[in-house]
Amino acid sequence: QLRRSLHRLCQLAVAPAPASGLRCRGLAGATTTYLDVSVPQDDPTVARLYQAVLNQQRTGLAQAITLVESRHPEKQARGQALVNRLLKHLAQRQHKRCFRVGITGTPGAGKSTFIECIGQDLVKRQGKRIAVLTVDPSSGATGGSLLGDATRMPELCVHPSAFVRSTPSGGSLGGVARYTQNAAVLCEAAGFDCLLIETMGVGQAEYQVNDMVDMFLLLQSPGGGDELQGVKRGVMEVADLVVVTKCDGNLIPAANHAATELSRALRTYQRMKHPLSGWRPRVLRCSALTGEGVPEVWQTVMEFLERVTDSGELVQHRVAQLEKWMWLHVREHLMDLFRESPAVAATLPALLDELRQGLKSPGNAADLLLRCFLENRAR
Amino acid sequence: QLRRSLHRLCQLAVAPAPASGLRCRGLAGATTTYLDVSVPQDDPTVARLYQAVLNQQRTGLAQAITLVESRHPEKQARGQALVNRLLKHLAQRQHKRCFRVGITGTPGAGKSTFIECIGQDLVKRQGKRIAVLTVDPSSGATGGSLLGDATRMPELCVHPSAFVRSTPSGGSLGGVARYTQNAAVLCEAAGFDCLLIETMGVGQAEYQVNDMVDMFLLLQSPGGGDELQGVKRGVMEVADLVVVTKCDGNLIPAANHAATELSRALRTYQRMKHPLSGWRPRVLRCSALTGEGVPEVWQTVMEFLERVTDSGELVQHRVAQLEKWMWLHVREHLMDLFRESPAVAATLPALLDELRQGLKSPGNAADLLLRCFLENRAR
Repeated sequence: QLRRSLHRLCQLAVAPAPASGLRCRGLAGATTTYLDVSVPQDDPTVARLYQAVLNQQRTGLAQAITLVESRHPEKQARGQALVNRLLKHLAQRQHKRCFRVGITGTPGAGKSTFIECIGQDLVKRQGKRIAVLTVDPSSGATGGSLLGDATRMPELCVHPSAFVRSTPSGGSLGGVARYTQNAAVLCEAAGFDCLLIETMGVGQAEYQVNDMVDMFLLLQSPGGGDELQGVKRGVMEVADLVVVTKCDGNLIPAANHAATELSRALRTYQRMKHPLSGWRPRVLRCSALTGEGVPEVWQTVMEFLERVTDSGELVQHRVAQLEKWMWLHVREHLMDLFRESPAVAATLPALLDELRQGLKSPGNAADLLLRCFLENRAR
Repeated sequence: QLRRSLHRLCQLAVAPAPASGLRCRGLAGATTTYLDVSVPQDDPTVARLYQAVLNQQRTGLAQAITLVESRHPEKQARGQALVNRLLKHLAQRQHKRCFRVGITGTPGAGKSTFIECIGQDLVKRQGKRIAVLTVDPSSGATGGSLLGDATRMPELCVHPSAFVRSTPSGGSLGGVARYTQNAAVLCEAAGFDCLLIETMGVGQAEYQVNDMVDMFLLLQSPGGGDELQGVKRGVMEVADLVVVTKCDGNLIPAANHAATELSRALRTYQRMKHPLSGWRPRVLRCSALTGEGVPEVWQTVMEFLERVTDSGELVQHRVAQLEKWMWLHVREHLMDLFRESPAVAATLPALLDELRQGLKSPGNAADLLLRCFLENRAR
């Protein structure tokens, strides 16, 4: 019976999801399929990639990331086994910390150019090793990722101290989140000093990425007067630092204006108390073209990261994020199980009709669906 | 086996919930307990209250609301049966619509005084019948509801065309939401022209109430300069109308300043497109003391409601709300079931330890918990 349940889980992962306003598609396809697959302790693929990642081999890391983003049940199981081994390694060795910095902004804010610029400063001038992950759950829509990483960050892509990688397109948000978390573990194990997670300014991706990183940057280009129109509600509140890009040439006045507007917005709309004590989010200006202001942005990033590391808040913050993600994964997956339950699927259409006609209250409809779900499971 | 599951549901409703950051306590206690109880078609209490509500008897309505807010399984079942019968009646008779207007604002914004003033205008001058529900999930904290309805709205409380009622204190958000939805059905069946739902400016209550009403008003008192500090993030975005209160005497300059600031904030931070087409949220000023501006506020409310009624958006909006609530009830309840599962409860502490130490990824921890839950159910 258990194996049947688990087997059905595997089937669910490929079943199409019904459309709904509150649909939490989430983790199916990325989470569940390997519940039923066990990986031997001495699996050769896992062992080989484990060594390759720890030895900082680029191709090995690329293969490991491909493994964790796979939708094939056995590969997923191997990917999770690899991540678990690396987590154990990282926990035992008190490994040098790899900072995670999230970067968001509307399309055209200049995220790729900014990352190319700051990344080169880090690898060439400061001798750091950095990894860049691009999260774009909506790829297929217009967005930078269509151009390919090599076009977007041409010099960073080929630098031996840098590693640039995009998420697979078309995944669900929950799936992408899980993949990104695993990829972050791989990058940390591969000894990178910093992981930049770039997110396209669409949907809920920003909030999800905010819950994966140590610091969250909002990039904003000088707009045509009404600077804040394009900024998503809520993103301002969670940004630890706002950067006005393209502050060069005849865009300087517009950039200055944007900076003033954004500072004002930060003052009025920022959360009452920053979750990391004593930090006051600020607005900086820079130009990836002239390089002006870019070192200052990174100095501010490091100031923030050092402060929260010293205060112990970085560790607390990460632990809180991990627990939050665990519950989110559980919740999304439970809802998937519920929706895919044959009893629920059979009852839902008629019940929705009654609900829409005002013949059932939402709470009562929910009770009836839950009863269907439980009866089905109890059998 | 089914009955055992359902019986356990009843037990769960009274079991204490474990503490957690993402805890969705929700519906236990309000939703689940009567799943196992059936009510005969000719239940005398239900029949009596059904007639009393339709006959617009105040004591009958008050008893009916007490019934739907009860935590006793049998009373809950009767309450739901009553609501279902009234829903059927309302759907069949194409009953005159009872508009639902949500009113929020920080403590001290003057919500009660505003409702007392506008309510008297409605019942005395316009000859309307209105009901007022106060939603305060956090009561026990400082807030107007401690004062009691009679103190807060002394004249409205005793007027024969008005009905004022507070939610029971101490309920969970989900439970309060469900209760309020049922109470709204009772008020609609009792033939009120308008239902005002007042919410205390705490927690997520505003968003929940926004999803229950046809129109959402934000009240703001003239503050000490930084008008927007007290306004919760997100509330501005969902408000259909913002009202600056206490615009009288020497507060007039401050009220004017607040109105300007709020207009600016509305322009920059309002959702890009109002969900109800063609409506542009605006800022009005009024004084409950002098009565100035109060009729204009109500005119604007009616303008909005008539527009969305004529366009058919009111009906669409309500249907969307009902579906949203149904899924929210399901989700919260499923998580309750999950957390209360003995297998999950037994596994969780050790797994959380591993998660916190970085030995497990959140996705993997979620999988293991889900497996516990399914194994337990499959047995």
